[in-house]
Amino acid sequence: MRATLMYGAGDVRIETVPDARLIEPTDALVVVTRAAICGGDLWPYKTMEHSESGLRMGHEAIGVVEAVGADVRAVKAGDVVIMPSAYSDGICVFCHEGLQTSCIHGGFFGTEVVPGAQAEAVRVPQADGTLFVLPVGTVDADDALMPSLLTLSDVMGTGHHAALSVRVGPGKTVAVIGDGAVGLCAVIAARRLGAEQIIFLGRHPGRIALAKEFGATDVVSERGAEAVERVRALTDGVGAHSVLECVGLEQSMLTALNIARPGGAVGRVGVPQGETMPASRSAFFSNVTIAGGPAPVRGYIEELLPDVLDGRIEPGRVFDRVVRLDEVPDGYRAMNDREAIKVLIAF
Amino acid sequence: MRATLMYGAGDVRIETVPDARLIEPTDALVVVTRAAICGGDLWPYKTMEHSESGLRMGHEAIGVVEAVGADVRAVKAGDVVIMPSAYSDGICVFCHEGLQTSCIHGGFFGTEVVPGAQAEAVRVPQADGTLFVLPVGTVDADDALMPSLLTLSDVMGTGHHAALSVRVGPGKTVAVIGDGAVGLCAVIAARRLGAEQIIFLGRHPGRIALAKEFGATDVVSERGAEAVERVRALTDGVGAHSVLECVGLEQSMLTALNIARPGGAVGRVGVPQGETMPASRSAFFSNVTIAGGPAPVRGYIEELLPDVLDGRIEPGRVFDRVVRLDEVPDGYRAMNDREAIKVLIAF
Repeated sequence: MRATLMYGAGDVRIETVPDARLIEPTDALVVVTRAAICGGDLWPYKTMEHSESGLRMGHEAIGVVEAVGADVRAVKAGDVVIMPSAYSDGICVFCHEGLQTSCIHGGFFGTEVVPGAQAEAVRVPQADGTLFVLPVGTVDADDALMPSLLTLSDVMGTGHHAALSVRVGPGKTVAVIGDGAVGLCAVIAARRLGAEQIIFLGRHPGRIALAKEFGATDVVSERGAEAVERVRALTDGVGAHSVLECVGLEQSMLTALNIARPGGAVGRVGVPQGETMPASRSAFFSNVTIAGGPAPVRGYIEELLPDVLDGRIEPGRVFDRVVRLDEVPDGYRAMNDREAIKVLIAF
Repeated sequence: MRATLMYGAGDVRIETVPDARLIEPTDALVVVTRAAICGGDLWPYKTMEHSESGLRMGHEAIGVVEAVGADVRAVKAGDVVIMPSAYSDGICVFCHEGLQTSCIHGGFFGTEVVPGAQAEAVRVPQADGTLFVLPVGTVDADDALMPSLLTLSDVMGTGHHAALSVRVGPGKTVAVIGDGAVGLCAVIAARRLGAEQIIFLGRHPGRIALAKEFGATDVVSERGAEAVERVRALTDGVGAHSVLECVGLEQSMLTALNIARPGGAVGRVGVPQGETMPASRSAFFSNVTIAGGPAPVRGYIEELLPDVLDGRIEPGRVFDRVVRLDEVPDGYRAMNDREAIKVLIAF
């Protein structure tokens, strides 16, 4: 079969690899019908050292189950499924608590352990706990809802996680840092949870326009100290109750901590690129809470799905480019050059 | 009047200074009857650079109101009051939210702005919002409850804040880092809020014994990686739901982050001695929340006071030495040498 491999920074190739197949009795084999390139894939695209064997990329997919292992009960051949970014058994203590990303038998797709989903097919470990079976009849393979459903495999659930982690709700002032797909989905999530004011920090006209359609009430295009000043001016001088940090750089975290109001919180879902956190002492003196982490998106699909099916939210609009598998390397380039917000891979 | 001044690391002196007096119409003048030396006072005692003018120390006191400014309404001469570590107006947006430490007109005692309470008298700004008047008849100046009441000015409220910030409650596993007065009060707070398991990290036999009497169910005397291993072993291999970090050193924060279970939280009330936070990236991957900050103890007195008056909690037991004002320098030495847990200053 054909799959996407990254061999180093800027070096993405489509190659023929051995067909995905069942290995464990808890596996499912899924034929991918839609996949995506994630903002998170751009970190290795920018920085990965050369690898001889390459890394099999991709952790967002929708597909059709082709076969299941002997122990799989909840999923059967023919099911149309959402494959979330992490696999999880669904029965351990952390899965029961809704933290599937810390599942005792879990892990992430697109790693050295489990090959990724930017491929014609993918082996899904812990299929019963991992895959979300879409209700029969609600969607078919060509459904216009597919892009939005695909966001439930990662970015929409991640924006939701950022908002939940800092208790966004009615009456709250929210600031969103990051104008990628996750930041845009965080705007949707904040609006959906009833935030009163949603300040979007971004400079790209197209992304700003989409953020406004998603519910952003204010836009701040300044950076650094000027951005902090602008957000304060928009929030009675005190800062935002909840800041959703959807980037992961030290500078963006610093801005996030500085625009949170005393007693407020920063929900971080951008993977931190540094080991230490800046301005930790300042955050302490303001009683600013730092929450978030990898989003347990599997646990959020059930809650978000009705809103997608009814069209109340349209996170699929973050996809502004569709490519075929052979065009995936150019899709990476386009996202990295900020030509595209997010790239959908159609098979 | 006589007051405590710190002129540099290890250099604490009792000197005659101009009498405290009313300056603003919102001030009260309080004659101090009990004060204390705080673990937080040991940071400058260890590291302060030489100062020509000296710093007027102390931020915990009980006393009797001597006089009030023209605008003071809630406090009158003769009232027995608790003076919390921070002053606050009681009416700003942050005071209304219970975050008196971020009061728009607030600040801390024992700073360059407002002289401290290790003195015969203290000027209390924003007296209406700051002072807590003890109910007439419940206490007199010699009351045996005075040490416990005095802890409501800081350490008991701080332990409570650590526990609240990470939602300690029934069924929760709690680990407490720090065997000073705040750590011991954090044990009381965790027990009071219904924690099921309270793991106390400490090595000092006397402090361990007190922690057990306060409600600690387990003790871990190892340090670093071994402490992490021991806490994991005591918590089904996963770590504690809530970690109360009552020290503020990089190493203690690192231990705190490492013993929090995935999805758990670290409540920090030890003033961070470094600007950056270690292991921030690891905490992210485990969805560990970091909360806490300076405790808005003024807001907690009302809730904690009945338990003190009824003897249900006895935080005053953290005071294991009583000194007169002239002996305060030796009190600092004793606490710094870990001869005393906490020193009470009786006038």
